Amino acid sequence: MADRDETRGLSTAARLRGGRRGLTLRMLGAELGLSTATISLALRDSPLVADATRLRVQALAAEAGYVANRSAASLRTARTNMVGVMVHDVINPYFAEIFRALEAALNERELAIMICNHADDIRRQRTFVDTLMQHRADGLIMCPAIGTDADDVARIVDSGLPFVMICREVADIAVPMVRGDDFAGGRALTRHLVAEGHRRIAFVGGRRATSAGRERHAGYVAALAEAGIEVDPLLDVPETMTQAAVREAATTLLALPSPPTALFGFNDLVASGLMSALRHAGLEPGRDVAVAGYDDTDGAAWSAPALTSVFNAAEEIGSLAASLLSAQIHGEPATPTRILIEPELRIRASTRFVPSA
Amino acid sequence: MADRDETRGLSTAARLRGGRRGLTLRMLGAELGLSTATISLALRDSPLVADATRLRVQALAAEAGYVANRSAASLRTARTNMVGVMVHDVINPYFAEIFRALEAALNERELAIMICNHADDIRRQRTFVDTLMQHRADGLIMCPAIGTDADDVARIVDSGLPFVMICREVADIAVPMVRGDDFAGGRALTRHLVAEGHRRIAFVGGRRATSAGRERHAGYVAALAEAGIEVDPLLDVPETMTQAAVREAATTLLALPSPPTALFGFNDLVASGLMSALRHAGLEPGRDVAVAGYDDTDGAAWSAPALTSVFNAAEEIGSLAASLLSAQIHGEPATPTRILIEPELRIRASTRFVPSA
Repeated sequence: MADRDETRGLSTAARLRGGRRGLTLRMLGAELGLSTATISLALRDSPLVADATRLRVQALAAEAGYVANRSAASLRTARTNMVGVMVHDVINPYFAEIFRALEAALNERELAIMICNHADDIRRQRTFVDTLMQHRADGLIMCPAIGTDADDVARIVDSGLPFVMICREVADIAVPMVRGDDFAGGRALTRHLVAEGHRRIAFVGGRRATSAGRERHAGYVAALAEAGIEVDPLLDVPETMTQAAVREAATTLLALPSPPTALFGFNDLVASGLMSALRHAGLEPGRDVAVAGYDDTDGAAWSAPALTSVFNAAEEIGSLAASLLSAQIHGEPATPTRILIEPELRIRASTRFVPSA
Repeated sequence: MADRDETRGLSTAARLRGGRRGLTLRMLGAELGLSTATISLALRDSPLVADATRLRVQALAAEAGYVANRSAASLRTARTNMVGVMVHDVINPYFAEIFRALEAALNERELAIMICNHADDIRRQRTFVDTLMQHRADGLIMCPAIGTDADDVARIVDSGLPFVMICREVADIAVPMVRGDDFAGGRALTRHLVAEGHRRIAFVGGRRATSAGRERHAGYVAALAEAGIEVDPLLDVPETMTQAAVREAATTLLALPSPPTALFGFNDLVASGLMSALRHAGLEPGRDVAVAGYDDTDGAAWSAPALTSVFNAAEEIGSLAASLLSAQIHGEPATPTRILIEPELRIRASTRFVPSA
């Protein structure tokens, strides 16, 4: 009872709790007069430990707030129940739909899904990837940041970390990948706007250093070319992804001597900003200027006017990515499966004005 | 050269890479004829290892894609450069503003900020908290899920994990906490609507099991009471946080025999859904029915009509939370500092219609 004086009145558990995160198997063992090995076995419900001892150990551990150090455990066992998901824009509802599907498919209750918002900062992406590797995460699903190259991706795959790429593609490397066919979607939407009689169609947003930005734009260019419409560089406003940038782009476009009659927003967030900007300028979206988005996120169909958009299969992308990841977690090799999902044009009032509505 | 036959033509690095995540210090040592201890010292730039040896080790490790196992390292050193942030709704732009401030204050380049979207699922929150503890994260900033009780919070604090609570409060426990004064904000906004002549004011959204939901609502009730207006339970529609639920609530409210003339949305997302719902019903927000939000997120001022909202200091909350966390990371105790920030009512056209605008 050498420690009696300083801890008078405190229970054993409270005294151990006082040690905070330093609480170890050894401390529990010293307290109970048992070896560290016995404590460890008891906490893992080993039949090698007598029931009474096991219960005594577990009771004290629970009372003292002992947390197994998974870092050490993961040196022995493969699973850490930690999966990373990286995207460039966490507030885009399209990604929220993908997260939801991932969580459902991966059974999130037993898994900590750690989201990283890299905001297209390659250094931030690298920090996150390194942290996941160092902590031996079970897997990584990633929409790669601008600047990600084949070496960056090879480093992840070569480390053995189960890995799936979504939404954006990186040149010169084949890895498990799921995304929508952005070229087909961009072309379908632009063909629709041309068919509605538009010749001055602006393309707003999308980063050309990404496959999504390049391909939706290439689809737009292809559809204009088919119709014999020359691409006007004044109507091409890439890289505008924040709401502030979208407003500025809209203001500039509307001030042109020959302003656009239709606006193709790179995604629904951009389209929603464009609608606000039109109203701000005293123009009614749908009636005065056609507006369309991409992704067909929740709310597009219900906005006023209802937003024409390209359905981009968030749920399917999320659940396919989860399957590809699960297969690797269960030991299958990371074969370069490349899944391209056909998008679907959904025409609504924002590009087809109905006066009576 | 015993392994020559099976690996003919492969470099040493390529052969080691083939082992994938199993690559260890021991394997590197065996390859170079050095002890594991020497390899370990060389990778940490120790002066105890001759320069030539150090460079030889580092070159092979880099070529073979060796990643230091931080799990093991973290048993010795305190920092893992991993901070968790938990919220219930990752797509709310208000949280994006808080994340941005956190990242700036914590210097995100050297830190992996791991976001968890608990979606008010207490089990998911627990999984994430356990994972952070097990991997000895440097800290946790948390907007607690519905159902979080004092014991849950005590368990985190007692573990020694640096911890700060934001936006929502948990009863019966004092921990470092930063949030806006939701009662004051709710009352200020309702007073304004009353002053504009409204008597039928609906309150839409907010979860009453959270401090934010309870207090904004209590402020609304207090302001109505001051004005001698009885609270009509038909105008009180809590728990509606999804866009679909907001639409349904709006439809029900507008169909009342005596419908509301003003709508107080629990946050800007709810208010934006209410605006869409009004337009869908052929009503113009601001002119026909007043609409107000809360948080004053980016875009509120610029929406059409500009949205009256309660500025809720996202940036200040994020940077104060970062300071409180940093202090603990640097060894200060988790004193129960409770910071309540006074919000600021920002009146715009959505509640004060200007016909000429």
